[in-house]
Amino acid sequence: MDKLKEECGVFGVYDPKGNVANTVFHALVALQHRGQESCGIAVNRDKEVYCYKGMGLVTDVFNDKKILDNLSGTMAVGHVRYSSEGTSSPANAQPLVLHYVKGNLAIAHNGGLRNTAELKKEYERTGAIYQTTSDTEIVAYTIARERINSGSIQEAVSKSMDKLKGAYSLVIMSPQKLIAARDMWGFRPLCIGKKGDAYMFASESCALDGVGADFVREIEPGEIVVIENGKLTEMKKHVGKVPTSFCIFEHIYFARPDSVFDKRTVYESRKTAGVILAEDHPAAADVVIGVPDSGVPAAVGYGKKSGIEYADGFIKSRYIGRTFIQPDQTDREWAVRMKLNPLRSNVAGKRVVVVDDSLVRGTTFAYITKMLRDAGATEVHVRIASPPFLFPCYYGTDVTSGKQLVAHSRTLEEIRKLIDADSLGYLGLERLKDLVPAEAGGFCDACFTGNFPV
Amino acid sequence: MDKLKEECGVFGVYDPKGNVANTVFHALVALQHRGQESCGIAVNRDKEVYCYKGMGLVTDVFNDKKILDNLSGTMAVGHVRYSSEGTSSPANAQPLVLHYVKGNLAIAHNGGLRNTAELKKEYERTGAIYQTTSDTEIVAYTIARERINSGSIQEAVSKSMDKLKGAYSLVIMSPQKLIAARDMWGFRPLCIGKKGDAYMFASESCALDGVGADFVREIEPGEIVVIENGKLTEMKKHVGKVPTSFCIFEHIYFARPDSVFDKRTVYESRKTAGVILAEDHPAAADVVIGVPDSGVPAAVGYGKKSGIEYADGFIKSRYIGRTFIQPDQTDREWAVRMKLNPLRSNVAGKRVVVVDDSLVRGTTFAYITKMLRDAGATEVHVRIASPPFLFPCYYGTDVTSGKQLVAHSRTLEEIRKLIDADSLGYLGLERLKDLVPAEAGGFCDACFTGNFPV
Amino acid sequence: MDKLKEECGVFGVYDPKGNVANTVFHALVALQHRGQESCGIAVNRDKEVYCYKGMGLVTDVFNDKKILDNLSGTMAVGHVRYSSEGTSSPANAQPLVLHYVKGNLAIAHNGGLRNTAELKKEYERTGAIYQTTSDTEIVAYTIARERINSGSIQEAVSKSMDKLKGAYSLVIMSPQKLIAARDMWGFRPLCIGKKGDAYMFASESCALDGVGADFVREIEPGEIVVIENGKLTEMKKHVGKVPTSFCIFEHIYFARPDSVFDKRTVYESRKTAGVILAEDHPAAADVVIGVPDSGVPAAVGYGKKSGIEYADGFIKSRYIGRTFIQPDQTDREWAVRMKLNPLRSNVAGKRVVVVDDSLVRGTTFAYITKMLRDAGATEVHVRIASPPFLFPCYYGTDVTSGKQLVAHSRTLEEIRKLIDADSLGYLGLERLKDLVPAEAGGFCDACFTGNFPV
Amino acid sequence: MDKLKEECGVFGVYDPKGNVANTVFHALVALQHRGQESCGIAVNRDKEVYCYKGMGLVTDVFNDKKILDNLSGTMAVGHVRYSSEGTSSPANAQPLVLHYVKGNLAIAHNGGLRNTAELKKEYERTGAIYQTTSDTEIVAYTIARERINSGSIQEAVSKSMDKLKGAYSLVIMSPQKLIAARDMWGFRPLCIGKKGDAYMFASESCALDGVGADFVREIEPGEIVVIENGKLTEMKKHVGKVPTSFCIFEHIYFARPDSVFDKRTVYESRKTAGVILAEDHPAAADVVIGVPDSGVPAAVGYGKKSGIEYADGFIKSRYIGRTFIQPDQTDREWAVRMKLNPLRSNVAGKRVVVVDDSLVRGTTFAYITKMLRDAGATEVHVRIASPPFLFPCYYGTDVTSGKQLVAHSRTLEEIRKLIDADSLGYLGLERLKDLVPAEAGGFCDACFTGNFPV
Repeated sequence: MDKLKEECGVFGVYDPKGNVANTVFHALVALQHRGQESCGIAVNRDKEVYCYKGMGLVTDVFNDKKILDNLSGTMAVGHVRYSSEGTSSPANAQPLVLHYVKGNLAIAHNGGLRNTAELKKEYERTGAIYQTTSDTEIVAYTIARERINSGSIQEAVSKSMDKLKGAYSLVIMSPQKLIAARDMWGFRPLCIGKKGDAYMFASESCALDGVGADFVREIEPGEIVVIENGKLTEMKKHVGKVPTSFCIFEHIYFARPDSVFDKRTVYESRKTAGVILAEDHPAAADVVIGVPDSGVPAAVGYGKKSGIEYADGFIKSRYIGRTFIQPDQTDREWAVRMKLNPLRSNVAGKRVVVVDDSLVRGTTFAYITKMLRDAGATEVHVRIASPPFLFPCYYGTDVTSGKQLVAHSRTLEEIRKLIDADSLGYLGLERLKDLVPAEAGGFCDACFTGNFPV
Repeated sequence: MDKLKEECGVFGVYDPKGNVANTVFHALVALQHRGQESCGIAVNRDKEVYCYKGMGLVTDVFNDKKILDNLSGTMAVGHVRYSSEGTSSPANAQPLVLHYVKGNLAIAHNGGLRNTAELKKEYERTGAIYQTTSDTEIVAYTIARERINSGSIQEAVSKSMDKLKGAYSLVIMSPQKLIAARDMWGFRPLCIGKKGDAYMFASESCALDGVGADFVREIEPGEIVVIENGKLTEMKKHVGKVPTSFCIFEHIYFARPDSVFDKRTVYESRKTAGVILAEDHPAAADVVIGVPDSGVPAAVGYGKKSGIEYADGFIKSRYIGRTFIQPDQTDREWAVRMKLNPLRSNVAGKRVVVVDDSLVRGTTFAYITKMLRDAGATEVHVRIASPPFLFPCYYGTDVTSGKQLVAHSRTLEEIRKLIDADSLGYLGLERLKDLVPAEAGGFCDACFTGNFPV
Repeated sequence: MDKLKEECGVFGVYDPKGNVANTVFHALVALQHRGQESCGIAVNRDKEVYCYKGMGLVTDVFNDKKILDNLSGTMAVGHVRYSSEGTSSPANAQPLVLHYVKGNLAIAHNGGLRNTAELKKEYERTGAIYQTTSDTEIVAYTIARERINSGSIQEAVSKSMDKLKGAYSLVIMSPQKLIAARDMWGFRPLCIGKKGDAYMFASESCALDGVGADFVREIEPGEIVVIENGKLTEMKKHVGKVPTSFCIFEHIYFARPDSVFDKRTVYESRKTAGVILAEDHPAAADVVIGVPDSGVPAAVGYGKKSGIEYADGFIKSRYIGRTFIQPDQTDREWAVRMKLNPLRSNVAGKRVVVVDDSLVRGTTFAYITKMLRDAGATEVHVRIASPPFLFPCYYGTDVTSGKQLVAHSRTLEEIRKLIDADSLGYLGLERLKDLVPAEAGGFCDACFTGNFPV
Repeated sequence: MDKLKEECGVFGVYDPKGNVANTVFHALVALQHRGQESCGIAVNRDKEVYCYKGMGLVTDVFNDKKILDNLSGTMAVGHVRYSSEGTSSPANAQPLVLHYVKGNLAIAHNGGLRNTAELKKEYERTGAIYQTTSDTEIVAYTIARERINSGSIQEAVSKSMDKLKGAYSLVIMSPQKLIAARDMWGFRPLCIGKKGDAYMFASESCALDGVGADFVREIEPGEIVVIENGKLTEMKKHVGKVPTSFCIFEHIYFARPDSVFDKRTVYESRKTAGVILAEDHPAAADVVIGVPDSGVPAAVGYGKKSGIEYADGFIKSRYIGRTFIQPDQTDREWAVRMKLNPLRSNVAGKRVVVVDDSLVRGTTFAYITKMLRDAGATEVHVRIASPPFLFPCYYGTDVTSGKQLVAHSRTLEEIRKLIDADSLGYLGLERLKDLVPAEAGGFCDACFTGNFPV
C-alpha cells in the first residue's frame, strides 16, 4: 500500500525481578507497526550484554521460547526497524551492541540525523571505522568520544546532545544504567512506564499497555532520564532550548491509534481530522467509509460530523505479509486487490465518501476507487485526512526525494483525475493545529510546508 | 482466541488461456480464513498432474515466484486446510493427488463424513490401504471404486454421493474434466464464477472477487457441475432429495463478511444478528463496541437499532501469527493482550456493550472484560450474536466434544459470572431463522440444538 | 562424479529395552552411501506407529535430539533413499506407513520390481488408488490383499513373494512383528544382527558395526525372518526356488568396503579385482593410484600384484555435498576439480596407472586424466575394475537406458581416446567369478551381459 | 574427533575479466578445512564493496547461484572461519567490511595477535568502539589510524605491521588495490597465484589448484604485495627483521596434504614424519594403518621405511557433518564409531601399528584402540607423528589452555594406559627439523616447547 514508512520503535526495561526478555518481546510486538524489517533484544546479565537480533517480524525472529530463555537479565533494550530501500541489511539491525572505553553499551535508536556527514568525517579523521550504514553508529561514536572527558555515561549523553542535530529517541544500556534520551526538538515520541518495581521506556504508550505497565508520562524534548539501582533521575539541561517539533505524522499515520500523546489517544486526533474534513470538504453522499486500517478513525469522525452514515467499506485480508509474491511485480492492482475487497452491500448503489489518512506516492489509490465503482458505488468522493505531502523527510522516514510524491508537481485537479475521484479534498494546512491536542507543544509539518526545524 | 475452526477451503479453475496457478494462489489467499495449517495447488498440464503443497499460509508455502511458474496448465484445484489437534501432518495436506484406474485425479475437499468408519472397513476388506488420516482418502476410494462400473467420472461421483454420508464440498480434477460437487444436505458452501472463458469453483464468493471473476451462482445441495472442453454441464440427480442443512455458523463466523450467500453478504447477516440482539437484549449503555474482527458487524447492527453510539473499542495487532511463542503456555491472558488493546478514549468512564459473534470454550472472554474495566469502562454488558454453543459438530469443524464448551454444563448466570459481565445476552434460538436471508433453504443448527441432519 | 546410484538402504530393529530410534539413526548414517535423497524412521510404540521422514541426509533430517526422543518404542524400521531423476519427491520417502485391514504397517524396501505395471493394473481394476510413484506402494497393496486370505502377516508376505517379480529386500513392521524378507533371486543384500536381546535387520553389515551389534548371518534369497515377542523364526519356503542372482555391483561399487558378503569384506573383493587387472592388463609404470574413494582398494591390489608402488594420487574434498552449485551447470570439469586434486609429489614425472571401480557414463574421466597430466604425469594408464557397462538395470539403480552408457556404442579404442588414456584395460567378463568369494552363490551380471534373471 | 582447530583461511583475487565471485567460491571450498563455522565473500564493483557472509560451510552459505551472480566485480576477498568455543557469532564472520577515512575496505585475516588488549585500550582511549570480539577489528583500526598520516593504503599497512604483534596473514581490498601482507614471523602461510591476467592470494596452494591457477610463490614473512591496475608490486621493508616462525602444525595437521610449502607438498612432510617414526619407534607388527584422513601419509611413510605392509585400516563415513546430534552428548564413543569403522579383513588376527598425526586432548583415541581390538587386532601399537602437545597456542588456533591437553600432566606410560596401547611412540622434538623441507626457514614449535616467538 501507498504509505510512508516509519523507521523504528525502541523499548527499554529495568526490572529487578528479571525475566526482562519476555517483557521486551511483548513490547516489541506492540511496536511492530513502527518497523517490520528487523528486530532485536539486548539484555544485561551481571553487567555482560547478550544480544539476539534478526531480519523479520518479532514473532518470526523470536520464534523459539529458548531464545528468550537464554536472554535472562535485569535490564534490556529492544528495537524494531524498517529501512529505506537499498540498505536492508542484517548489519543494520539494532540494538547496536558495542564495547568502548567504559565497557559494554547497547543502543536502540529511532530517528534520523541531519549532520551525519559532518560527524562521520570528523570521526574518520581521527581513525573511526564504520561497519554499518545507520546513523546509530554515529550516535555511538559521539557518546563514546564524549565519554572520555565525562564523569558519567549520562554526562556523555548530555554532551552528545549538543553535537547530534536531528531526530533521535534513544534507549541506552550501560553496565549499570538504563538511559532514555529525546532530542531537544522532540521529533519522535518516547515515554516512561512503570509496573511494580520495574521501569520502562517506550516509543509509544501502546507498548506499555502490551506489557501491562502503567503510563507515567512522556519524556520531554531534550530530556534525559536515568535508571540506576532502581532509582529514576531526570536531567533537563536541554529541555526548552528550541521550540518543540513533534512529528505531525505520528498523529496522522505512524503511531498506533491506541497510543496516547499529550493525554489524548491518537484515535481521537484522527477522528478530529475527519470532523475537520467534514466541515471544510462536505459531500452530498449516502455513506462514509475509511480505507482500513488507518483511514477508519477519520471516516468515523467525518460521518459523525456530516451526519452521513459511517459503514465498513472494505474487508482487509489479515493473511498478507509484507513480502508476498505477486504474479507480475509491475502490476500493483493485484497487490491492492489481495489486501482489500469492497463490502458490496455497503457501497452498491450509493454515493460514497472514502477517507484515507494520507496520499503519498499515489500509486494505488486509483485501484481503490476502481474497486468501489466495480462494486456499484455511483459516486466516489475522496477525502484525505492530512494536507498534500510535498517534501521529503529527514527525520526517520523513508521518503527521501520529493519526486516520488504525487502532490509534488500536480494540481489538485490533476490528482483527482489520476485517482479517478468525483471530488477530492485534503485537510487544510491551517487546520493542522486543530488536530493535535491543546496541551501539545509545537509540531513539525515540514513534509507539508518545507519548514525544516533543524 | 476462543474461536471455532473451519477445516477447509476449496477452489478450482478451468482456463483455456492457462496461467491457472496464479489464479488459484490469489483465490487461496482470499480463502485463507478457512484454513491456515496447510495449503496446496495441483495443476493439469497436458493431462499430467503437478502438485505443490506444504504446511503454513499460502504466502509462506508459495513464497517464490518460481513455484507458481512451474505450475503452468489449463486446469487446477487448490485447497487451504485447518485440522483438529493431533492430526496436523504434511501427509494430510490437500489436494489429494492420486493415480487410479482411469489415470490421475486431484481432489480438494471441505467437510466431514459421518460414515467414515464403515466405509473404511468395507474397503479394507477388499485390500485398501490408507496413507492419511483424512476423510478425503475415503472420498477418493469411493470414487475410484464406483468408477470401475461407471461410464464417466461424473457418473462415479454421482454414485459416490449415495454412499458418502455427511458434509462435502468437492472440487475434482480428472485428466479431462473439472468437477464440483456438493453433498445433498448442502452443509458447506460452494459457488461458480466466470471470468472471460474461464470457469471457477470456490468455497466462497470472496475468492471470486479476489481473482476479479464474476459470481455466477451457488451450487445447489446435491448438485454436480462438470466443466469439459470449456462447456459447463449441470447434474441435479441428488438435488432436493433431503432438506437443506446449510451450516448456520458460516453466517455467524466462518465465512468472510464480504462473501455472498443467498444473494446477501455475510456482513448483512451478522449486522442483522446485532439488530436482533438490540431488540431482545437491550442495555442501558453509552457505547457499543465489537470484538474484532468477527464481532464488529453485529456491534454495528446493535448500535444502529439501539441508538447507542457504535465506536471502535479495541485495536487489534496485525502482526501476530498463529504460532507465536508465549512466555508461559498456560497463561492465555498474554495471548489475548498481545492481540487486542482497548481504545481507552472510547470506553473510559462509559457503560459499554461489547458484542462478539460466539462464545465457544469461553477461555479468553474474561480477559476481554478485564481489559475493558482496566481501561475505565464502568459497566460491561456482553452480547453474543449466536445462541449458546452446546453440541460438537461432525461436519468439518474442530469441536468434537461437548465437554470443551463453556455453555455445555453452565447456566447463563454461571457463564456471566465466569466472564465477569454486568449482563449477558445470547441470540435466541428462535431468532436464527431471521438472521439468514429469506431466499435461504433450511440450515443446520445442530451445534445449538443437537438436531444432527445425517 | 560418474557413478551408478543405488536406490535404497533398509534397517529394522526389535529391542525390548526401547530407545530404538537412536539405534536406527546410527544404522542409517552407516547406510547413507546407499541413498542420500531422503530418509525416515518409523517406530512402534504400544502398537501405534510414529513416523518421521524428510528430504536430505540422515544427520540433516534428524537434526534435533527431540525428533529422536519423540520416536520412542521397542520396534522400528528405517530407510535411506536415492531416486532416479524426475521422481525426487517427499511423497516417495520411506518407510511407507499405512493402515490396512489388520492395523498399521510400516514398510522399508530396497529394490525394483519387473512386474509393477501388471500388478498396478490388476489392483486398479478392483479400486486401488496410488499416492506415490514408488514400487513400495505395489508391495504394500500386494501384502494387504494377500493378508485378507492369510492367517498371519508372514503368510501374507510369503504369498506376496509369489506375485512380486524382481528385486526386493524388505523390512516390515506390523503391530506385533518385525519381518525381513529377501526376494528369491537375492538381488539386494540383507542381513541379521544381534546385540543383547535386540535383533536387527540391515542392508549391510556395516550398519551392525555402526550400532555395535554382532553380525549373525545373511538372510538367504527367498527367506523370511520373523521377530515376535523376542523370538526369531525362519521361513524358507521360497529358498532355492531359483538360482541366486546377487548384484555383482554391490561388490564392485555399491556396498561399503567394510561390509561383509559371503564371509569376506567387500574391500577384499575390490582388492582382488585389482589383482586380476594386474594379471590381465599389466602396465609399464612407476606408480599406481586409485580414484577415491571406490577405486582405491583395486589400486592397492593392482600395486601389490604388479610390484608397482601404490601411492595416494588425489586429495578428495570432504566438504562437497551432493547438491552444491556450479558456476556453469554445463561445465562438469569444475565439479570434478572441486572434489579431487592430484597429489603432485606422487605423480609428477611418473608413468601413472590410475584405477577406478567402473566407467558408467564416462562424462568426467577425461578431466581426471587431464588433471594428472597437468600435475606432471608422463603417461596415464587407466584400469577399470569391472567389465564394460552395457545394459540398463531394472533392479534398483538409476541407469534405465543404455544410451547414457559410454561403452554402449563405442569400441575400447574409442573410449580410450575419449578419456585420453595411454592405455585402457577393463576387467574381463570371464574373471567376474574370481572376484566374488568362493562361498557365494550365483550373481547377476546383467549390466555387463544383458542376461536379466527375471 | 580430537583435533586442533585452525581458525581461518583467506583468499583474494584481482581479475580484469570479472566473474571473481565464482573464483573465490571455488577457492574457499578448497580452503574449507581451515574453517567450517562461517564464510564470506566481498567484491569490489566500481569501487563499491558488496559482501555476503553467513554461518556454515561454503556450499551451504552460497547455496544459490543468484548469490554469486549478485557479487560481480573485478576484485574480491574471501574468508573461511573456525572459532574457539563461546565466540561463535555471525558478527565475527569475515571479510570485515568497513568504511573509513579513505572509503571502503574489506579485510580477511588468518591469525591471532598477542597485543590485542593493549591496542584495544589505546584505541578506546581516543574513542574507538568495538562491534565484534575478533582481532580483525583491531587490525582494521590500526590500519585506519595509520592511514591518516600515510600517503597510501600500503604505507598504512606497512606502518601497522610495526604495531601488530602476533600472527596475521591478511588480504585487504581498498577501492583501487588488492593487498596481501604476512606478519614478519611468518606464522601462517600465504601465497601468490596467477591465471591469465588475474592475480590471486591464498592461504594455501591447494586453493590455486582449485581454481586452475598457477602457483607463483609464497609471500615472505614480513612482505607486502600490492596489486593495482593489474600490476604487482612487492614491499619487503619488514622482511628478515625477525627469525621466521612458520607454524609447524601447518605441516603436521592444518594444511591440506596437496598444498605446497617450501617447494614440497605437505603430504611429503607427513610421510617423512612416518619414516622418522619407523626409525625411532620400530614395532614388531604385521600391518601399519593410519587414522583417516590426517594419519594416513605418516602411516604410508612408516610402512615404507619399516617394511611392514601398509593397509587401509578404517572406513571413514563421508556423511557426518560437524554438527550432528548424538544420543548422549557425553558419550563420545558413538561419535567416533559413526565416523570410523575398522576394516576387519585388514586387521583381524594381526599385530597393528596405528599412526595418527597428533594427540591433543586424547578424549577419543581409546575408542580407536578398542575398535581395533574388537575387530580382531592382537596388538595395537600407537605412533604419533608429532611430539607431545604441551602448550596452548596464541597464533590462531583453538587451544587456549594447557589443562585440556592429554600430555600436559601425564607421563608417556600414563598416556599409553589411557589409550590402551601396547606401545606408544611420539615423534621426537629434535626430529621436527627433519620433517620440514631443507629450504624452509625457522618454524614455531611453541605448542611442543613453550618457546613463544612473540
